[in-house]
Amino acid sequence: MPTKGSITREKILNEATQIFNRQGIAATTINDLLAATGTTKGNLYFHFKGKEELALEVLTRAHSKFRQFLNDSLQGETPGAELENFFSQVLVKNHERNFVGGCLFGNTALEASDTSPRFAQLARDLFTEWTQRLSLTIDAAQAADQVRRDLPADQLAELVVMTIEGGIMQARLQKAAGPLTRILASLRTLLELKVL
Amino acid sequence: MPTKGSITREKILNEATQIFNRQGIAATTINDLLAATGTTKGNLYFHFKGKEELALEVLTRAHSKFRQFLNDSLQGETPGAELENFFSQVLVKNHERNFVGGCLFGNTALEASDTSPRFAQLARDLFTEWTQRLSLTIDAAQAADQVRRDLPADQLAELVVMTIEGGIMQARLQKAAGPLTRILASLRTLLELKVL
Repeated sequence: MPTKGSITREKILNEATQIFNRQGIAATTINDLLAATGTTKGNLYFHFKGKEELALEVLTRAHSKFRQFLNDSLQGETPGAELENFFSQVLVKNHERNFVGGCLFGNTALEASDTSPRFAQLARDLFTEWTQRLSLTIDAAQAADQVRRDLPADQLAELVVMTIEGGIMQARLQKAAGPLTRILASLRTLLELKVL
Repeated sequence: MPTKGSITREKILNEATQIFNRQGIAATTINDLLAATGTTKGNLYFHFKGKEELALEVLTRAHSKFRQFLNDSLQGETPGAELENFFSQVLVKNHERNFVGGCLFGNTALEASDTSPRFAQLARDLFTEWTQRLSLTIDAAQAADQVRRDLPADQLAELVVMTIEGGIMQARLQKAAGPLTRILASLRTLLELKVL
């Protein structure tokens, strides 16, 4: 049975994830966190040494969750179908959140690249893993003639990741599905993606 | 002849642009701005009502500068050559700054989308103008058979803008030209870009 302490810790992590997503880590103060989590300063510092430690834990958990998302969404009868399902699920995921918050790792990349080496490293790790995972699927899809073969799989994977990051940024900015829907459609055509 | 006041104002704007680029607007305090500009609080408030007004002026000036960059870089003998030159100049521009700061409007999009409607609107305006400007060139390139014609020009323009934003994010995160160089190469192939 979860203890009262572990429930509080969980609540702090969940609320902190939301607020970091919406307004960034650097711009979030301890007071913002206290207001969002409804906890006391003493309680917050009992569970985390400070904002930095809390943010590291939020990013680590978000990384695990994203790895799970990759595993769950890259499913299908063929490599092409796996990619197609991944594209669809990216849109579903962002739609569910009404395009609020965007991608925590894209946000962190932009706010931490020049100021917080530890956070920047966590963002790099995530993007590397995502690109490598997609590269395996694209490579398999190329072998099955379901994705164009004139560019290497890792280069196409990198393009897909960056384009999706740009698309999430614009969907979030416009609070609309349009930008992400359209770039995913463009990617399907440009990659010559086939599911069979 | 510029007055002492206008020189100070200019210096504040230039330094503020750098610091907003590096660490974001929300996370920059008045004290950060005073330290960066070497000016007094009295002097800063003489020229600007506060951080919000200063940031609005920084974004407005950056928009004009980017419009100038579009006009200067979209030059060439043919529409395809204009696009090719634009791609090259995007890389040169980011290289010159050693991949520090990234794109001020991409950064603003991510930090302001859910928190600062005025800044978010300025970012939307910039991306709309950029997409429309590229769309005209891509449309002309399609007519000249220098870009693939199976997707509408405005959809391809949107993809190019988002992909470049994602590429700038990754180049900044990795402090390396590689990600941006590779996605620009991928875009050339995928768009079937020809300069003649």
